[in-house]
Amino acid sequence: MDIQGSEFSTKGSYVTGKEYTRDTHYIETRITRDGADGYPVEAGRYRLVVARACPWAHRSTIVRRLLGLEDAISIGVCGPTHDARSWTFDLDPGGADPVLGIERLQEAYFKRTPGYPRGVTVPAIVDVPSGAVVTNNFPQITLDFSTEWKQFHRHGAPDLYPEELREEMTAVNKRIFTEVNNGVYRCGFAGSQEAYDDAYDRLFAALDWLTERLAGQRYLMGEFITEADVRLFTTLVRFDAVYHGHFKCNRSKLTEMPVLWAYARDLFQTTGFGDTVDFEQIKKHYYVVHEDLNPTQIVPKGPDTSGWVSAHGREALGGRPFGHGTAPTRPVDA
Amino acid sequence: MDIQGSEFSTKGSYVTGKEYTRDTHYIETRITRDGADGYPVEAGRYRLVVARACPWAHRSTIVRRLLGLEDAISIGVCGPTHDARSWTFDLDPGGADPVLGIERLQEAYFKRTPGYPRGVTVPAIVDVPSGAVVTNNFPQITLDFSTEWKQFHRHGAPDLYPEELREEMTAVNKRIFTEVNNGVYRCGFAGSQEAYDDAYDRLFAALDWLTERLAGQRYLMGEFITEADVRLFTTLVRFDAVYHGHFKCNRSKLTEMPVLWAYARDLFQTTGFGDTVDFEQIKKHYYVVHEDLNPTQIVPKGPDTSGWVSAHGREALGGRPFGHGTAPTRPVDA
Repeated sequence: MDIQGSEFSTKGSYVTGKEYTRDTHYIETRITRDGADGYPVEAGRYRLVVARACPWAHRSTIVRRLLGLEDAISIGVCGPTHDARSWTFDLDPGGADPVLGIERLQEAYFKRTPGYPRGVTVPAIVDVPSGAVVTNNFPQITLDFSTEWKQFHRHGAPDLYPEELREEMTAVNKRIFTEVNNGVYRCGFAGSQEAYDDAYDRLFAALDWLTERLAGQRYLMGEFITEADVRLFTTLVRFDAVYHGHFKCNRSKLTEMPVLWAYARDLFQTTGFGDTVDFEQIKKHYYVVHEDLNPTQIVPKGPDTSGWVSAHGREALGGRPFGHGTAPTRPVDA
Repeated sequence: MDIQGSEFSTKGSYVTGKEYTRDTHYIETRITRDGADGYPVEAGRYRLVVARACPWAHRSTIVRRLLGLEDAISIGVCGPTHDARSWTFDLDPGGADPVLGIERLQEAYFKRTPGYPRGVTVPAIVDVPSGAVVTNNFPQITLDFSTEWKQFHRHGAPDLYPEELREEMTAVNKRIFTEVNNGVYRCGFAGSQEAYDDAYDRLFAALDWLTERLAGQRYLMGEFITEADVRLFTTLVRFDAVYHGHFKCNRSKLTEMPVLWAYARDLFQTTGFGDTVDFEQIKKHYYVVHEDLNPTQIVPKGPDTSGWVSAHGREALGGRPFGHGTAPTRPVDA
């Protein structure tokens, strides 16, 4: 996500009663084993397009790595900033994605739907043969990585979406999405002081709930990492770097919420999490793109991120990060 | 200080090479025992005009209270926000200062100099009989409170500007002014990424120096509070509330710099310091007035300030806050 036009509370159509409301209409086509939507699971056929900056795309890079889907699904990486129309492949030599051969992600959206009228968002999965976007429906993308792409999982891949936990996880994920993942945006893009105040209270109430939940157990669903942890992590890792100052989520920094800070460090130090984080791109994205909030476009030098690798002590709570599986062993590929 | 026209790096004349440069030309008339400038020290004649939000004015309210000058020099308090022309007495009943009878501080500046062309700043000392500003030269105002107004000091007033320390204090004060008091503004009003990066490095280098200086001694000049501590305090107490986020001084919060945080709490908990702080007015001023930096004018709800009254442990370093004097005992008057 994070595209111009669906992000700015001051730009009208996505603000209701001065409260920021996210456009959650995505291309809902799925890539499945049975190919019911016309796109069957197939190694080498699809390209996952992300930006390191974007928290919604970040989920997919973590899950892809934890499950070892690197050989099955290649990755294209957009730069941290974008213009009003599109994310771009400005990090690539020549400014074009080497597989798709396009400079702007918008081109792949247009191949799917000429004149595509909604936001050009990441993550997006592109069908390489046709060059068209298959889906940008981020909440479904990672779940499908877990369930539909199972035959391509690495040996020792964790089960991030265990059947017996799905019902509870759905409720947890929903609350994390509305109150935390999207809650920080509701603070930052509030159209009035009242809307902001309300968003702030909701966000920190949810963080207090999470503190309580995580005080005595290592991960959100218990003993091992699941999809729910991935979803919470992508917001927590951006909290002090951007949400605290830029979005005014400033009751306290993550570093001042001991349980969540230790939990976040524990994940950060787990293969697949910290090694997919790029703080410089994260900061650059928010502070440069959101000119309405930061007209100078100056990017803060802080915060000091050295604490992320400090001891967290969460092993004392027990648990096994990968459950019956093992940690990824291959290096990060992009 | 903190008036439109001298604050905004984006407004031209006060920006040199994209670095923010403060206009330091003030009305330098002094109120002295010998009345050399036409304004002799005299109880009841002058009114100190401040705003709780402004760090430069804050110095004068602390020093006035520490020295017990409340009966000799009355105080007028402007509201936290102001328009392009002037600070205003919008907190007072009827929107006018009850002693000066004016709505806008600018009127007192115009009584002194018709069409006064520079910033209408606080603190300003107004000659009540003529209604004209005598001086707005804030670095001299507090020193004159210590030296020229001695006959009106309360019994037990501390010596904030001891002769034997003046030479060293002048050097310390200078560094604190250029690198810290004004250093935070240099970050916030930087006109380019390079100017900001440089300002950030200078600011935190100075804070590291102060950490070192204060690690083993209770106050900046040693065993007791001096003018130097007052000058540092007014920036530290605003650090997490406004400078950290709004001015991007975000290597870490004050709460994450243990020595400075304990030092600041020690002062905050000393009569004359914390009781002159209004966090709501401080936040409202910066976030509403600096529309160039915060176009939404939304004021953050955080940070949580409850930590300011927590134990600081600095008594273990020895020292006596008021030297041979005693703490003020009267309640805050305004």
